[in-house]
Amino acid sequence: MMKRRLFSPGPTPVPEEVLLSIAQPMQHHRLLPFRETFARASELLKNFFKTEEPVLTLTTSGTGSMEAAVSNLLSPGDEAIVVKGGKFSERWGAICEAYGIKVLPIDLEWGKSVKPADVRAVLDKHPGAGAVFTTYTETSTGALTDIKGVADVLGGTSTLLVVDGITGIGVHDFRFDEWGVDAAVTGSQKGLMIPPGLAFIALSKKARENLKSSQCSRYYLDLGKYFESFEKGQNPFTPAISLINGLSRALETIFEEGLEEIFRRHQRLGDATRAAVGALGLQLLPEIPCNVLTALWIPGSIDGIELLNYMRDELGVMVAGGQGHLTGKIIRIGHVGYFDDFDMLTAIAALERALLHCGYDHETGAGLVAAHKEFIKSY
Amino acid sequence: MMKRRLFSPGPTPVPEEVLLSIAQPMQHHRLLPFRETFARASELLKNFFKTEEPVLTLTTSGTGSMEAAVSNLLSPGDEAIVVKGGKFSERWGAICEAYGIKVLPIDLEWGKSVKPADVRAVLDKHPGAGAVFTTYTETSTGALTDIKGVADVLGGTSTLLVVDGITGIGVHDFRFDEWGVDAAVTGSQKGLMIPPGLAFIALSKKARENLKSSQCSRYYLDLGKYFESFEKGQNPFTPAISLINGLSRALETIFEEGLEEIFRRHQRLGDATRAAVGALGLQLLPEIPCNVLTALWIPGSIDGIELLNYMRDELGVMVAGGQGHLTGKIIRIGHVGYFDDFDMLTAIAALERALLHCGYDHETGAGLVAAHKEFIKSY
Repeated sequence: MMKRRLFSPGPTPVPEEVLLSIAQPMQHHRLLPFRETFARASELLKNFFKTEEPVLTLTTSGTGSMEAAVSNLLSPGDEAIVVKGGKFSERWGAICEAYGIKVLPIDLEWGKSVKPADVRAVLDKHPGAGAVFTTYTETSTGALTDIKGVADVLGGTSTLLVVDGITGIGVHDFRFDEWGVDAAVTGSQKGLMIPPGLAFIALSKKARENLKSSQCSRYYLDLGKYFESFEKGQNPFTPAISLINGLSRALETIFEEGLEEIFRRHQRLGDATRAAVGALGLQLLPEIPCNVLTALWIPGSIDGIELLNYMRDELGVMVAGGQGHLTGKIIRIGHVGYFDDFDMLTAIAALERALLHCGYDHETGAGLVAAHKEFIKSY
Repeated sequence: MMKRRLFSPGPTPVPEEVLLSIAQPMQHHRLLPFRETFARASELLKNFFKTEEPVLTLTTSGTGSMEAAVSNLLSPGDEAIVVKGGKFSERWGAICEAYGIKVLPIDLEWGKSVKPADVRAVLDKHPGAGAVFTTYTETSTGALTDIKGVADVLGGTSTLLVVDGITGIGVHDFRFDEWGVDAAVTGSQKGLMIPPGLAFIALSKKARENLKSSQCSRYYLDLGKYFESFEKGQNPFTPAISLINGLSRALETIFEEGLEEIFRRHQRLGDATRAAVGALGLQLLPEIPCNVLTALWIPGSIDGIELLNYMRDELGVMVAGGQGHLTGKIIRIGHVGYFDDFDMLTAIAALERALLHCGYDHETGAGLVAAHKEFIKSY
């Protein structure tokens, strides 16, 4: 017998009761009771984003919501400041370029986080930039961005702040209205604990004004259609009904636990994993680590692919490897979603066994005990 | 107790074993066993379309695949012939306009089907048209289009034939390669018998050439990315993993029954329902009816909304009403997907009871017996 356990930072494990809610018989999306389910989920999504604005549900991968932010808010020829420090933040640039938007990049070494002052410096030179595109938590590196700090820089300017919160929202406190974020997106297979296939986007009133002027071609991702349907408690196109059933069930679970408790839980999982990494003599990749995942360097003496394969094939524990130029050089252990203390002990124990297999010299159990102590200390 | 039964032409009921396959624990989309599942489903989708070309899987509603056909094959300023005869065929025009493509409409009265000669006439005047956009079965009216006939008209020209097969493929025989179709799309919540959230598109080699020259802005729906990933048995973005598990399971069921038998079953369901409509003294809407659904006029003496509400709220039988200017004037009884003879008897019996409730004079049981006899005759 080999139990298989998924520790990727998305898709993440889905709670059993959510899986079963997804398996409900098909309902029609224009009729009750589905419309009530959708309305309830939409209301809870506002709390999830901490906003009074509608949170729109798209039937796409997370990238679909990123594209919607670009194509609904800007026009070809506009300038946009894009913070690039990993695979997903680079995607903002690629999407802008696909729409003929001029990218003003802030290039960071992967693992670094942008400083609000860096954004201010570029904005001072390009005050006409239509938007700043940022990433709350960069999933390819585990780096956390100070979104509130960036929002403060943009306060009082006409430049919109657009945040990829695909893995960050629901893990770290995120205050759409209070911070003054103009557009935020997230996906379903992360903090929301449902399978991939849905994405979500909220716009500030200021951002919503741009829908009228934006000249980018769009139809399926035209948010004007979604706002219009939203008023009637509907979707403009047949949505992924089963996944919305799961969303509604997952949001109930989330608000039973409470957002603040969820943030504390992820903090605990991150702290404990980082303590284990230190105790094993390993190094973290990010300068300012988030609690979505822990990204750590694989010691140079070890074949990173062999380590990952051993964990997956011999121990049934699937953590993520590196992306882009970090392939084979780092591993990423997910904390986002349906994970608790004991899950992390499992991941750390598996990592230790794989390190042992790969000949990495360390005190057996050091990581496990460090995490265990950190957990005990947290209560 | 009230059993609720869904007879809409999408979303349609999902077989129980498919629902359960959708509730499987989450797997990572870049790893086995999911990649095997996706590869198996992709291979069977080729048979479903009767093509040797890749059938790409998009995580969108059906409309996403329609937009992909427009934005990947044409460029702003191009001319396109659009056959318009219902809500969904009109959508082709709206999408083309969103991309600055000049629409040459063939306007049909709702319920009529385009004749290949009509297409030839417009093409003769506009030989430079980049594509003809058609709808195999128009879900808002139940009309069937002679796609082979239209394809024959386009044979040897440079104009591409694009087919919305969202409800038609898997109900009526569809031969992508043999007929010379250039692009065809379908959705998941119809003949494929899974929940909404996935869409599919195949391109001919000729159409695929256009990916290089098309100037429309696109990122998430950029089919070049999907072809590239497809070669590696992957998706470019995190796909709706659970729905692909369902897809794979549903395609197994479909090919156990066999496509030809599925076409015969839908023919039988359509024939029997139409026989019932005639026996009740009612009129069909479409001139050339498809077997996806039966669309029939509600007698002028009856309040169409009351009829629908009575069926749904008092009998638990949900059929679809009219869309656009046909709201309240027609009903549409779905046959597409997981339906058999006895399901149709249920729908017809419920229709008779609702007609009785609304005061429509008819011989009690006439529809039921006509359908029953038609079924018996078919074996």
